[in-house]
Amino acid sequence: MYIKQTIEQLAPYVPGIQPQMDGRVIKINANENPYPPSPRVKEILSEFDYGQLRYYPDATSQRLRTLIGTHFNLSSGHVFCGNGSDEIIAYLFQICLEEGDSIATPYPTYTLYKTIADIHRVHTEYVPTRDDFSIDIEALINTGAKGIFIANPNAQTGLLLPLAEIEYLLQNYEGLVVIDEAYIDFAPATASAYELVARYPNLVVLRTFSKSHSLCGIRVGFCLAAPMLVDALDKCRDSYNVSHLSQLMAAAAFEDQLYLQKTIKQVVATRERVRETLISLGFEVLPSQANFLLCKPQHHTAGEIYEFLKSKQIYVRYFDAPRLSDQLRISVGTDDEMDVLLEQLIEFLGD
Amino acid sequence: MYIKQTIEQLAPYVPGIQPQMDGRVIKINANENPYPPSPRVKEILSEFDYGQLRYYPDATSQRLRTLIGTHFNLSSGHVFCGNGSDEIIAYLFQICLEEGDSIATPYPTYTLYKTIADIHRVHTEYVPTRDDFSIDIEALINTGAKGIFIANPNAQTGLLLPLAEIEYLLQNYEGLVVIDEAYIDFAPATASAYELVARYPNLVVLRTFSKSHSLCGIRVGFCLAAPMLVDALDKCRDSYNVSHLSQLMAAAAFEDQLYLQKTIKQVVATRERVRETLISLGFEVLPSQANFLLCKPQHHTAGEIYEFLKSKQIYVRYFDAPRLSDQLRISVGTDDEMDVLLEQLIEFLGD
Repeated sequence: MYIKQTIEQLAPYVPGIQPQMDGRVIKINANENPYPPSPRVKEILSEFDYGQLRYYPDATSQRLRTLIGTHFNLSSGHVFCGNGSDEIIAYLFQICLEEGDSIATPYPTYTLYKTIADIHRVHTEYVPTRDDFSIDIEALINTGAKGIFIANPNAQTGLLLPLAEIEYLLQNYEGLVVIDEAYIDFAPATASAYELVARYPNLVVLRTFSKSHSLCGIRVGFCLAAPMLVDALDKCRDSYNVSHLSQLMAAAAFEDQLYLQKTIKQVVATRERVRETLISLGFEVLPSQANFLLCKPQHHTAGEIYEFLKSKQIYVRYFDAPRLSDQLRISVGTDDEMDVLLEQLIEFLGD
Repeated sequence: MYIKQTIEQLAPYVPGIQPQMDGRVIKINANENPYPPSPRVKEILSEFDYGQLRYYPDATSQRLRTLIGTHFNLSSGHVFCGNGSDEIIAYLFQICLEEGDSIATPYPTYTLYKTIADIHRVHTEYVPTRDDFSIDIEALINTGAKGIFIANPNAQTGLLLPLAEIEYLLQNYEGLVVIDEAYIDFAPATASAYELVARYPNLVVLRTFSKSHSLCGIRVGFCLAAPMLVDALDKCRDSYNVSHLSQLMAAAAFEDQLYLQKTIKQVVATRERVRETLISLGFEVLPSQANFLLCKPQHHTAGEIYEFLKSKQIYVRYFDAPRLSDQLRISVGTDDEMDVLLEQLIEFLGD
């Protein structure tokens, strides 16, 4: 039985720790939102006629595309919906990148770009971020890669790349530019690159319902891009890639912008408060614009603190990887969860 | 902006007609089940805490894999769950087929195999079925293709390939063998190839929740295959490919085998009754083992009957394709729906 060597050589997928949530556990390791989704999602579920599930979903997620397009002052022809934004990333490789091509992406960042590149036998050129973890656009361009993937705010660091730098990139680079805005709702409203989509046909802005909309579980992401790219994505997607209920729930959440803004504001307020406290405890903390904080402890290793917190049923994220192994990534939970975290840290560091 | 020519040249995806279901419409064009899913699916929805959607789903759909594995006397390591079986087909190309390879598949069959092959630049060798639409296994083997895809019962025809012929294929062919059992639950229980999975490492048996479980809308399919193949599928799948609620609903439906058998029995009884009536009306009707009937009218063209039925808000399937353009494919609806269909046909043919 022939299996491609490329696939066999891939490291097996290791899911993040998914602890049993017994009420005492604090799970701040996957950048999940601590607040429930919009109450309209609850309404959708309670009103839904389960008999409808015998039909195929809308193949194109058209209602969702129209809602999203209108919101961003674009046509629905600029919108593609996927089974999570991860699926869209995989499709972008299928439509734009050949075996043997290269992509460039900063290091550190979301590791999935490289994983998917490996599957498609596309080389990943990691361009180190500067000492302060800021992204070096010029160095990315200079790789000569066929596509550039940037998470903004960046995964792991939470740092925001200014919009002017993204526009500079677009003015000086003709390859595929993917700006993955999974966390953008936690940054100032002016940070998004969505307005550039109408002007740059090589730009793809990725979004997800997982983070700001608290809907990791439904697997819906979308992208904004030139209609030519959206048409190509439509040609290679699964015939029915987004489930019926997921389309309905995503639309309901998207329409509830008031709730979205309320929870974002709360997450951002908590983030800033926790950041200040961590700094006062001696951590170096990057100025995150996302829903997590990357922080570097003094006097103890990140691994020690990770293990201590785990023993207290507080799950944060530790990366045994270059430039990250002395850091902890802490997702912003509720204020109560963060208070428990901070109390435990004070106790541990005081010992 | 570079888009692969392969993708640009693909025919744009044309979704099947999805008429507004206003109560008078009879939709028997997509092989959807006329009965609702198991009532346990309704219970899952009404009991579900929507707040759980803020978490990622189980990455591996482990509970579902365990349920399925147990049911088929296999380990959960023989089971992979996908966002519909379409997703699994695409992954099989990613792990087993190289650009320039060939697959062989009977003609006619499910057109998606060729669509996905085209996306992956794999050549599709269509092996014509015999005059009676039976599948020529020897001819499939003789193509020398690297993989053979067989829908069983076959799409469009509903004909069942005897298990002995599948075993003959496996004994005489070392490439990838995909037996797509989307419709197998409507055939006799002994028809499935699942028992061969433990013995043939090159066999993949595909299943879906869309048809017999009435769950097109949730997008869940699975395959049974050697653990080595399942491991490779796990390496290249999206990190979280099946949504939280879809996993729960699929598991609930799968556990309700009593309801499944009851609705299958009803669909099969209706199928046989309608088949006899269609024959008495002068149609040639293949002996389908699926939840649809492929039938060839006399005296009128299939296109004429299709248009007439459409004008009466009865949607059947017409394929403007070789060997099918003189046929209609009619999904088995409820008895009431079939009675309306048959009355209209009698009226039309009597004119």
